[in-house]
Order: sequence, then structure tokens, then C-alpha cells
Amino acid sequence: MKWTQSYIPTLRETPADAEAISHILMLRSGMIKKVISGAYSYLPLGFKVLNKVIDIVRSEMNAAGAQELLMPAIQPAEIWKESGRYDVIKDIMISYKDRHGSEMIMGPTHEEIIVDIVRKDISSYKQLPFILYQIQTKFRDEPRPRFGIIRSKEFLMKDAYSFDKDTDGLNRNYEKMYNAYISIFKKCGLNAIPVEAESGIMGGDTSHEFMVLSESGEDEITHKGKKEKAIEIGHVFKLGTKYSKALGANFSDENGKENPIIMGCYGIGINRILAAAIEENHDKEGIIWPKAIAPYQVIVIPTNTADEKINKAANDIYDKLIKEGVEVIIDDRDERAGVKFKDADLIGVPTHVIIGKGLTDGKIEIKDRKTKETQQVLVKDVIKAI
Amino acid sequence: MKWTQSYIPTLRETPADAEAISHILMLRSGMIKKVISGAYSYLPLGFKVLNKVIDIVRSEMNAAGAQELLMPAIQPAEIWKESGRYDVIKDIMISYKDRHGSEMIMGPTHEEIIVDIVRKDISSYKQLPFILYQIQTKFRDEPRPRFGIIRSKEFLMKDAYSFDKDTDGLNRNYEKMYNAYISIFKKCGLNAIPVEAESGIMGGDTSHEFMVLSESGEDEITHKGKKEKAIEIGHVFKLGTKYSKALGANFSDENGKENPIIMGCYGIGINRILAAAIEENHDKEGIIWPKAIAPYQVIVIPTNTADEKINKAANDIYDKLIKEGVEVIIDDRDERAGVKFKDADLIGVPTHVIIGKGLTDGKIEIKDRKTKETQQVLVKDVIKAI
Repeated sequence: MKWTQSYIPTLRETPADAEAISHILMLRSGMIKKVISGAYSYLPLGFKVLNKVIDIVRSEMNAAGAQELLMPAIQPAEIWKESGRYDVIKDIMISYKDRHGSEMIMGPTHEEIIVDIVRKDISSYKQLPFILYQIQTKFRDEPRPRFGIIRSKEFLMKDAYSFDKDTDGLNRNYEKMYNAYISIFKKCGLNAIPVEAESGIMGGDTSHEFMVLSESGEDEITHKGKKEKAIEIGHVFKLGTKYSKALGANFSDENGKENPIIMGCYGIGINRILAAAIEENHDKEGIIWPKAIAPYQVIVIPTNTADEKINKAANDIYDKLIKEGVEVIIDDRDERAGVKFKDADLIGVPTHVIIGKGLTDGKIEIKDRKTKETQQVLVKDVIKAI
Repeated sequence: MKWTQSYIPTLRETPADAEAISHILMLRSGMIKKVISGAYSYLPLGFKVLNKVIDIVRSEMNAAGAQELLMPAIQPAEIWKESGRYDVIKDIMISYKDRHGSEMIMGPTHEEIIVDIVRKDISSYKQLPFILYQIQTKFRDEPRPRFGIIRSKEFLMKDAYSFDKDTDGLNRNYEKMYNAYISIFKKCGLNAIPVEAESGIMGGDTSHEFMVLSESGEDEITHKGKKEKAIEIGHVFKLGTKYSKALGANFSDENGKENPIIMGCYGIGINRILAAAIEENHDKEGIIWPKAIAPYQVIVIPTNTADEKINKAANDIYDKLIKEGVEVIIDDRDERAGVKFKDADLIGVPTHVIIGKGLTDGKIEIKDRKTKETQQVLVKDVIKAI
């Protein structure tokens, strides 16, 4: 991709209403843009990162044997009354009356809907166990939206649900999801810490939260003996029979006896992974994306596009990297080198290839965004060195 | 994938409230499930098809140089008043008052929001042209939801927006999108017919609709001299300056003069592609998916899982196909052959590999779902024959 053909509106100034470093840097790097407090657009660069996180989550969930589906956001209020959670979520729910006067809720979570599906299809122990999941937008009339995409009114969640005939099965699925979460967060470059947690409005007995340490965290956890602030990026629950009992999702067992299905539920805040990755990986110059979720792996920077030799060498390297299948962007703007270096640091691409004066000696510079180490490399060795 | 580990709740009976053949077959094949009238869940098999359609749309849009972003569903009513469309959409909009009493609209379309983004970032002709797009859920309080996913309250749309400094640029981008649409629909296996259309509430002068002939269509078009019913699956508009003028999205040209940005917008109904594909490709047994969007390419059917030889041969072929990277499902259920054949026809997988009595002569049967032609093949030649 060429920078001049990309939509990357970077900002020099720190936006007035941003506190968290991830919020500030996502705004400044042109990754997101505010629509209203608590609702953001992902601009192309931010969307690339979001999509990489989604790919990692999806591939790990599939590898764990979970099957993807997609439920609607619109949910009838009725089913929340049936499950007994209508009053519990009333304060944060976004709801409306449709043209026929029926109350509809913009789903803040999907336990009710998934159980409604399963109670219609499942009748026998032979159909169990299974895990279903979706990657879907949730809506909440958040009283205090803050920290950009960390606490917002509209957010992308991966929510999975396991269905078993007995507690042993639930324990196995819970462990499967727990391990998938460890693997997902590791692949995203995060140091996620699992902690035992309260089940809250979800109900059930056992539950773990996955936390990333950060000054912008809204939870307090004890880690290595210290009290620390942390962001919750995932949560797994052993729900048991709370929803299946309330909504009548039963199966007949080996002896023909009717029992409520035993459930677990497993959430990941997709957007929060991006924020947490920045909270963990940045310096005063900008974002330092973990490679697995970086929008590009390499940025090629000709320091002076008016210099034909520099320009040609930069474009040659860019073309070669494209051919090698490397995700690369070339900063082909007619801008001062200083502006380009600043923007490259800000958007956090892991490897910078700088083509400047050294070219007269046949050399270009490769810079590691994280360590800031640079090396001079002969033009012919660039591809190898990356 | 093994059928016994999949969530595929096929139905023998035709559901009571379904009229369109695509609606009936998607329900019967366990691809979708109704939550309320006008809002459906995509079950795993249907989601696979949806995801393939999304992949095709995304790759063609990217190839045309459009950049993907993601805007929120929640939009402030204010901006619709600013653009002058608040009264136009009032009847179909889903809106709510948030906890501070501000009216919010669940986006039925995103012209206002994209122009809000662009007016903040773009100031010079040097930043033009570009095309932005998203694949996102739209919400409408549809007065008459019908035909399953053809006319629903919540639907997935690919909406693209082009921004140019002059009409020549708009014409080029319009043609680019028009050609991308032709290519997308062709790759999805659809015979889409472009027809000149009215611009309606979108405004602008030129517009084309992409139609697929179907008895369940709600539009009438003249095709080859005959009046025919058709489903609209895409629509491209030359908007001109309607939105940029209303919302003040200007750029300064080469002479420093301020002008409104010239826009086009380009929509595809993602869900409708699935419905249209079924309307065009089915028989009385079920769906006949075009290969590019089929949930699986091959279904392996052991006619009798109690027969060890049959079972082993079927699993060997399944394992080999997996190794070859073929998207394959094995119907490993302990069911009569007749049930399996019916379900395989119903869900519309293009190629059926049937392992039955012929195995005593070392032969298995390969059936083409579409032509219903069968061939007897030696076990060792199966992979080659597929």
C-alpha cells in the first residue's frame, strides 16, 4: 500500500478528551475516530488491526472445535423476562418499541438467544456436547463511557457457549476454552493474567477473568503481591443450569430422564485486545504493535521523494517486499524525513526501512521500532535482512 | 468436519410461515433460524456460506483499491437533521433516547457518518480521490419483513463511498465499482442483471441496480422483453454533492477555491446474495450451492456405519480429502442411507461421495448434486476424480 493512497489521518496534537494512552495513540495514529462519546469508527489502519485480532480469535476457536454462528442484535424483551434477567439489565440496556408496540432490546449479550436456539433443536444426550460462538457487536447504554474503545456503548465481542450433559463435560469444555484463551492472548502479543473471579449477573459458580496490567484499567487485582490496575479482556464462566432451567432447554439422558443442559459461557472483548496491546506496547513516540497484529510488518521510507535515486531504490524494495508477500506500506508522501519518521513511529509498524543519504554508499538503514536498534545494510541484502 | 460434531438441525417439514423457496430451504437445511419476524440467526452451516460471500466481496473491493473501515451502528439523530434526511427515514428508523435524553438512531445507512469523518480529515484536492467501504449491520423497522433474509429488520450490507474532486473522477470510481460488482456477483455464481434505476432517497443523478430474477422478487424489471420479478442485490449511485453540501465536506482545489467533495455510494446486500443464490440454484430436493459459496465442497456418505469396511473406507477417503485441503464433511451419523441422501441433497454440497455396497467390487459412487450424474470409481481413483 502507498501512503498517499491510504486514509491515515495522523494528528500531531493530543486530543483534548482522551486520557488513556491507548485512546490517545489510536486517535493520533488515525486508527479510530469518535462519532459520539462511546462510539468510534475504525479507520482503515485500525480496521486492519481489528481484523487480525478477529482472525486469531476465530482460528483458535475453530481449532478448539467450537462452531461459529451469528445471532441478531435485535432481541425481543420477552425472552429476557422469561430468563428473569430483564430487571437486571434494565439500567444499561438499549431498547425501543417497534411499530407494533413490542419492546425490542439491542443485545447486550446473547445467553437468552442461544438457549432459545438450542432448546428448539436439542432433545437427546446423543446431540451433546458442542460449543457455539459468534463474533458480534454488543450494545449497552454505558453510564460512563471512557478510555476510547476500552469502555464504550457499542463493542465487538467473541461470545462462546458450551452445552453438556454432565459436569465432567462442562469441566472439559471450560478447560478447552481456558486454554484457547491463553493461546489467543499469547498470539496477540499480550501478557494476560488469569484470575479467579465473581460470576456477577452471569450466574454460575466458577469463573476466571483474563487481565492485562495497565494504568487505565478499571479493575484492581493482586499480582505478584502487589495491587495493580488491570483491563479485563476475557471472562469464562461455568454457568451450570441457570439459563437452561429458566428457559426450559432440556435433554433426555441415557435412561430417558429429562435434564437441563449444563452450560458454560466464554467472552472476549475484541476491541479491548487492541487497547490492551497498546497499553502494554508503546513509548513516548507512539504505538509498538506486536507483530501478529501490526497493520503492516514493514514501512519503507524514502527520506526525499524528489531525489530520483532514493525514490527508485525505495520503490524497488517496496515492489520486492510485495512480491515476497510481506505486508508493507511505502511512505511516498512529499514530506520532510522528520515528518515521516514521526508518523512511522506513531503508527507502530515493527520494521522501518529507511532509504536516504547512505544510498550513495549503496546502503540503507533498517530500524527495529521496538528496540530502536538500526543496522546499515547493502541494498541487495535488504530482503534477507527483514 | 464430522456431521455428528456439527450443529446442522435439518427439518423434514416445510415451516409454516415461509413462502419464498430460499427462506424455506434455509430453514429446512438448518442454515438459519428465526428469532423474531425479520431477525434471523445464521447457524454454523449458513454462517459458512455468509462468510464465503463476505470474503469474495472483501477481496474484490480491496482489488478495486477500496479501503475497509468500520463505522458504529449507533448514530446521533442530530447529524440526520443536519443532512436533512431525518424526516425522510423517520418512518423506518429504529431510534432510542439514551440516558441523557439524546436521540440515537441505529444506522439504517451510513452516508452521514462517513461524510462526518471525511469533512474532519480532508481539506485539499491532494488528498483525493479515495474509496472507503465497510461490511456492517444495518437496522430498519421494516413494516413488512418477509421472505426470510430477503427483507429483514437487521441485515448485513457492504456499503462503499467514493470521494472525488471532479465528475471525471466520480465517473472513473463509479465504473470501478460497477465492474467490481459484476465480478463479485459472477464469483458468487449469480446471474446479476444491471438495470438503470431511480436514485430515490439517496439522491444524485445516475444509479444502477443489480437484479437477480426470482419469483420472490419484490421489484419488477423488463428483461429480454418480458416483465419479470427480481431481487435487488446491489445498487450504485452517483450522489454528486448532495451530502457534502449539506454537511460541509469541502476541499480546496488547485487554485485554492473551496468546493464540495463529489461522492458516489455503492451498496451490496450480503444476506440477499445467499437468498438469490438459492432462488437461482435449487431443485425440489434442496439447495444446489454454487461451488464458490458452498459450505463444503464434498460430503462423504457411508451408507451403513455399522459395516466396518464401509466405515473404514469412508473415513480413509475423508482423511485424504482433509489432507488435500478439500472442504469436506462426513455424514458419520448412525442413520439410514435414505436420510443421509436426503440431507445431503437438502444442504446442497456440490459433490457427494457415497460408500456403499459397491465397495465389495472396490468401487464407490461420486454424484454431482447439480446434474445428478453419478459415476462409479475405484477407491484408489477417488481423490483424482473429485
